[in-house]
Amino acid sequence: MVTGGAGFVGSSLVDRLLEDGHAVVAYDNFSTGQRAFLANALTHPSFTLVEGDTLDLAALTRALRDCDVVFHLAANADVRYGTDQPRRDLEQNTIATFNVLEAMRAARIRRIAFASSGSVYGEAHVFPTPEDAPFPVQTSLYGASKLAGEALIEAYGSGFGFEGCIFRFVSILGERYTHGHVFDFYRSLRDDPTRLQVLGNGRQRKSYLYVGDCVDGMLLAMAKTRRAIEIYNLGTNEYCEVNDSIAWITARLGVSPRIEYGGGDRGWVGDNPFIFLDTARISGLGWRPRLTIREGVIRTLDYLQRHPALVEARR
Amino acid sequence: MVTGGAGFVGSSLVDRLLEDGHAVVAYDNFSTGQRAFLANALTHPSFTLVEGDTLDLAALTRALRDCDVVFHLAANADVRYGTDQPRRDLEQNTIATFNVLEAMRAARIRRIAFASSGSVYGEAHVFPTPEDAPFPVQTSLYGASKLAGEALIEAYGSGFGFEGCIFRFVSILGERYTHGHVFDFYRSLRDDPTRLQVLGNGRQRKSYLYVGDCVDGMLLAMAKTRRAIEIYNLGTNEYCEVNDSIAWITARLGVSPRIEYGGGDRGWVGDNPFIFLDTARISGLGWRPRLTIREGVIRTLDYLQRHPALVEARR
Repeated sequence: MVTGGAGFVGSSLVDRLLEDGHAVVAYDNFSTGQRAFLANALTHPSFTLVEGDTLDLAALTRALRDCDVVFHLAANADVRYGTDQPRRDLEQNTIATFNVLEAMRAARIRRIAFASSGSVYGEAHVFPTPEDAPFPVQTSLYGASKLAGEALIEAYGSGFGFEGCIFRFVSILGERYTHGHVFDFYRSLRDDPTRLQVLGNGRQRKSYLYVGDCVDGMLLAMAKTRRAIEIYNLGTNEYCEVNDSIAWITARLGVSPRIEYGGGDRGWVGDNPFIFLDTARISGLGWRPRLTIREGVIRTLDYLQRHPALVEARR
Repeated sequence: MVTGGAGFVGSSLVDRLLEDGHAVVAYDNFSTGQRAFLANALTHPSFTLVEGDTLDLAALTRALRDCDVVFHLAANADVRYGTDQPRRDLEQNTIATFNVLEAMRAARIRRIAFASSGSVYGEAHVFPTPEDAPFPVQTSLYGASKLAGEALIEAYGSGFGFEGCIFRFVSILGERYTHGHVFDFYRSLRDDPTRLQVLGNGRQRKSYLYVGDCVDGMLLAMAKTRRAIEIYNLGTNEYCEVNDSIAWITARLGVSPRIEYGGGDRGWVGDNPFIFLDTARISGLGWRPRLTIREGVIRTLDYLQRHPALVEARR
């Protein structure tokens, strides 16, 4: 089962699992997931789509009855608007993860992969940030809710023999990406190529990972990790400034906007001005990302240009 | 406001706050709290008792309307039975803490003290364990739920300007204690002084703190900490083996039971075989516990001997 299987990363994972010969159940409430992302999967005989909410424990339990492994990717993935709706992160991320674990327990399934986030490090003091960085202090409701999800999975590991992997993602880029700074910048420049509004001072340092590399990493770690719960950072061995990304995007689009900075060293309350994860642990399994951040940004931009309806839909 | 104000630590804090001249609202659902613990407080003109559940957001919001500070102590404090009822820790600890924060936000209150637990360190690898120990892996649903509560408070600090202190308690001992190994051993020896069943091998190393010292520490830290959220371990600068504690208890009671060990290096699934917290941070504020672990154990035992009804009630 892939929860959030109609989402950006989820649907990419679904396609890969089907290619690899697995039977797959995608579970999605289509709050942000898109049926179009499952167009290929829906033609596959080993694919089942269940429209349902992770807050519906009974439906979730029914849906994963015959599954062996759960990739729990369903989430409110929007780190930025936590303070507008604090309950959303609690429900969609923390309580939803509890429900997934309870559904698995009822169905006697014990293998789980969880899409967590580098935001659980809060504002890290060690760079690149390793999985055993000093005890973090949370700076966002999103990070708090993901940390709570991790903690639940670990406790189910200890208490109920659950096994699997927790993945702390950097921001993911690539095909089916519909959410984040490349999306926002692209849409803004398409509307008005003469100016670009940027949150913060543009000096925020961020890490990104191409979705194909992300899926590779998850599958490799799930294949090679046996017993107990293991935690892996998933990112590239580099970071870029927002200004770097702007330069790549404007060059690719052939535009020269006036850049208008919002000011300050972060984009919003709880924005982390520097994200750079140590990926030595997952690299130790033989994983290497194939795309650099720049290549990921360009790949994303090209995808958005080929899918104008997607860009319009999110207005 | 003191949530869990009718509980062991909560009612001790209520008494101290009243002594110090504060007006106090105790909020408690009496699931484990006891009206008898508030006998003194109820005679005090500045004391208000509100019987309510932390899961009832509307009642909670009404109750704290005129408060300035919330000491959030209400919790399922039973670390041992998490796997029997996983939902209890989620609801009573994580969701309840979310409700306290939301009620405070609605009432425009921003100062909070939170009773967390050393169990958030999981099985620590650094002893004594400092507040910034390596990123922990949770081993109990209780620890997971307390970590989630801490994370929410930190995020409310970042997102909504909340201020205050998170206290990671070791096990607390003293007057009104009704729950834990001293209680269990005392009751067992009262029933049958010839034998004592002990979970694990008796070599588990644990830390304890006297409730009066715990209350002192919380009040001192809340008085001296300004702005932002600070985290403090609260424990003694020592630990003991379960076997030490048994020796003190049997000597005090004048009994010589045959000790029957359950075996293994821990008492139950998720039991942490070694708890010893670094208290340098709170000591830096000038705090020193007045009682040793041994003195705390004896004080607890003497209290239980003076309150046979309490021991009977928990059967």
